This record gives sequence, structure tokens and C-alpha cells, in this order.
Amino acid sequence: MPYAHEIRVTWGDCDPAKIVYTGRIPGFALDAINAWWEHHLGSGWFQMELDHNLGTPFVHMSLDFRAPITPRHRLICQVAPVRLGDSAITFRVQGLQNGVLCFEGTFVCVFVVADRFTKQSAPARSAH
Amino acid sequence: MPYAHEIRVTWGDCDPAKIVYTGRIPGFALDAINAWWEHHLGSGWFQMELDHNLGTPFVHMSLDFRAPITPRHRLICQVAPVRLGDSAITFRVQGLQNGVLCFEGTFVCVFVVADRFTKQSAPARSAH
Amino acid sequence: MPYAHEIRVTWGDCDPAKIVYTGRIPGFALDAINAWWEHHLGSGWFQMELDHNLGTPFVHMSLDFRAPITPRHRLICQVAPVRLGDSAITFRVQGLQNGVLCFEGTFVCVFVVADRFTKQSAPARSAH
Amino acid sequence: MPYAHEIRVTWGDCDPAKIVYTGRIPGFALDAINAWWEHHLGSGWFQMELDHNLGTPFVHMSLDFRAPITPRHRLICQVAPVRLGDSAITFRVQGLQNGVLCFEGTFVCVFVVADRFTKQSAPARSAH
Repeated sequence: MPYAHEIRVTWGDCDPAKIVYTGRIPGFALDAINAWWEHHLGSGWFQMELDHNLGTPFVHMSLDFRAPITPRHRLICQVAPVRLGDSAITFRVQGLQNGVLCFEGTFVCVFVVADRFTKQSAPARSAH
Repeated sequence: MPYAHEIRVTWGDCDPAKIVYTGRIPGFALDAINAWWEHHLGSGWFQMELDHNLGTPFVHMSLDFRAPITPRHRLICQVAPVRLGDSAITFRVQGLQNGVLCFEGTFVCVFVVADRFTKQSAPARSAH
Repeated sequence: MPYAHEIRVTWGDCDPAKIVYTGRIPGFALDAINAWWEHHLGSGWFQMELDHNLGTPFVHMSLDFRAPITPRHRLICQVAPVRLGDSAITFRVQGLQNGVLCFEGTFVCVFVVADRFTKQSAPARSAH
Repeated sequence: MPYAHEIRVTWGDCDPAKIVYTGRIPGFALDAINAWWEHHLGSGWFQMELDHNLGTPFVHMSLDFRAPITPRHRLICQVAPVRLGDSAITFRVQGLQNGVLCFEGTFVCVFVVADRFTKQSAPARSAH
């Protein structure tokens, strides 16, 4: 079961075509991934970075836009990690409105020592 | 020679890691593509949509993040169309700072009748 | 009792000073006002404009920033209309984190016929 | 003569009313103020904060919206400091398109030691 993060899409997210501006959709997916961390670790990127010196910068993202997003329904972003390597984690994010798939994407992050921006092992693995 | 669009990166684009927040980078690439249209057609998405009833919604984007972006240099976004089909156009965008490649990506748009959101042929082709 | 709208502040809202970037705070207040409409009318600006031809453009905003906002707490935005004239409505918005007042502001909107951008009376009054 | 900062307004800045979304206008004014610092000091907030340990957080902003902003013209933001106190600076920003005043606002910043967030005197004064 993927984690589901709900986003209240608003007027200000939309462009004159009356649908969400494409440039805002990656940010929705990132908000959902941050919420996934918050759900699983108890805190998100801000605390990971400032309190635990752990950064997870993105090295890749790929998105397919399947249907327009509007403020008429909440946007449900389902997040699931699909691969956890020694130094990277890949997330799959699917955004749905009213049961319709609006976008889906793949996001790859690497683990770094935050204050040095040097690679480190995945914290979940290094903890074992 | 690709078209080059210059972006003044600022404090507000950066996150606590002191580099541009990932969620803002797709928007930089889109601004560069819009500027490419403006350069080649004399106007951008706003006029294409409102004055010419031509929409070019994105159906795909893929980005690789190669190096952090900061406000210390202007961000030069090089834009080039790499494929023009009957109903779609693919752009390649590369973002450089001080000669260093920071990100590169591929962006696919389709051509639609703006007020109906139905596919139409590429305007450049239909003009011949 | 003012209406309370909760905002999940994230990493991407923050700048290198490790607090929310000032440029994003007005948007938080606007999201809260839109949510107020959604709470009271059943729908927000998008539906008011597209379904009811009612626009409420802002003519003024004024904000005082009292304390930094961070992702460590939810931001609670309390919204209350403080004046309803024949053609304008004034909102008071206060943003709190963990009981601390972070910002407060005044926002004035006028009522317009959306597709003409001409003034109209407040819908609540014209309904009586 | 105020300093003039030019902004290329785009499709993505606009909402379904086909004009710039109100929530983005304060950000335009802030970009213009940052550019004013860049013009006068040789660098903006990012370098002031990271290289010189000088922060200038906003304590107040007030804006009047006079006319809609669209992508049909460049937005010229005129910036002028109107008051420099011992510990604060007030800017006046006016945004014009095609000679029409679109917005005007007042912005008050205080000077702080960046890494402590404690007040300090205006650097221009302390230099004398």
C-alpha cells in the first residue's frame, strides 16, 4: 500500500488554460515525497538536514502528464519507494483526482552528508 | 546553435542547503522554453493560447540534475527542439552556470486547439 | 471565532536563512482566504470565477512579519472578514505556529463580474 | 532616479483570470529589491548573508494593486530606498507595464547579524 498525501489544489496553481500549470506539478510530487519521509521518520527534509546532517538531493526526475489537474477535487499523491540502493532511493509517485490518474513519475535521490554534500550510505541500511 | 535564455537565480529560489530547491528547476526549464517560443514566434504561450487558440501542453518531462545551482552566477538555459512530429514537439534544455552543466532535460509537448483541448497538427507544418 | 486553515510548511518554502522565504508568506495568507471561501460557500475562487462569474481581485494587502516561520510546526492561519462593504470585503489573517504569532495582515478584495472585470455588489448582500 | 528592474512576466505567472496571480506580485517586488542590492553592492541577499553575515529580513510590506499585470509587456519595477534608519531600511517599489502603474508598495527591512538573527546597525552607516 503506497502512502497517500492529499493536496488542496487552488486557483493560484492554475494558469489561463484553467488547469494546473505544468511547472507546479513537480513541486506537488516533491511535497508528497517529503510527506512520505515525515510519515515514516517522523520528520521531513528540514529536520533530516538540520538535525541529522542527512541530505537527499534529487539526481533525476521523470514525469508523464496523463490528465489535467484542477481545483475541483483534492489531488491524492501516492508515494512508494521502488528501489533502495546503498546510496540512492527511487520513489514512484502517482497523482490522482477523483480516481483519474493525472500524472505519474519517478524520482531518484542520493544520500549525502548534508554539510559536506558528499555521498553516504542509506541511513536505513547503515542503521542495521 | 541552441537558443540561450538567461535566468537571474536569487535567494528566494534557494533552500536551506544553500542551493536552488529542486522543485523550482522544472520551472526554470519551462521559462526557457516559453522564451524560445517568444524568440521564434514573437510571442510566448500566453499569446499563442489567447490570440491564436494554440495550446502546447506538456505530456512528458525528464530531468537529470548534474550540479547544484546557486545565485553566484546567471543560469544560462540552452533550448533546442530535437524532434518535431505531426502533433508533438520535443525540446532539449541544458542549464549551465559558469560553464558547468547543472541540469539537462527533455520536454515533450503536444499541439492542441486551446479552447477545446483536442489535438491539432504542428502549426509550423500546417502552415505549409 | 475565526476560521482556521492549516498549512504544512516544508523545506522548499525555506530559504538559506532556514526560515520561510518572505515572498511565500502572502501566498500562504491567500491560500487561507481561499479556504475560507471554500468553507463558507462550498467552493473557492476557481468555482466562484468559472461557475458563478464572480471575481474577487485584491486591491490591497498589508502584512507585518512578527516571527520566523519554519517547518517544525504546522502554520495555523486564522481568517476573519472584518469589513463587508457594498463592493469590497476586508479580511484579517493571522498566522501562528505553536501558539506564536508569526505574521498578521489585512487584505482587501473587490467584487467584479469575472468575465468583464467590472465592479459588482457583494454577492452576500445582493442575495438579500 | 529610481533603479529599474525588468521582469519577463509569463504564462505560468497568470491564473485563470488571465492576469498575474496576486500571490506572485510580492515576489516580483522582492526580486526587484534584491536586484537593487545587487546593483548597488555588487551582490544580492545570497552573498550578503553567506559572505558578509548580513541579513535584511522584512518586518512589513504593504501593496496596492492598481491594474492587472499580464505577459503582454515587460514589468518594470522601480525601486528606491525612501528611509534609512539606524537599524532599518524602507523601500518604495512601483511596478509598471507599458507606462501604466500596476502596483506600488512599501517594504521595510531590518538589519541583522545573519547567523544570530540579532539586530545590527545599517552597514552603510556603520562603514562611516
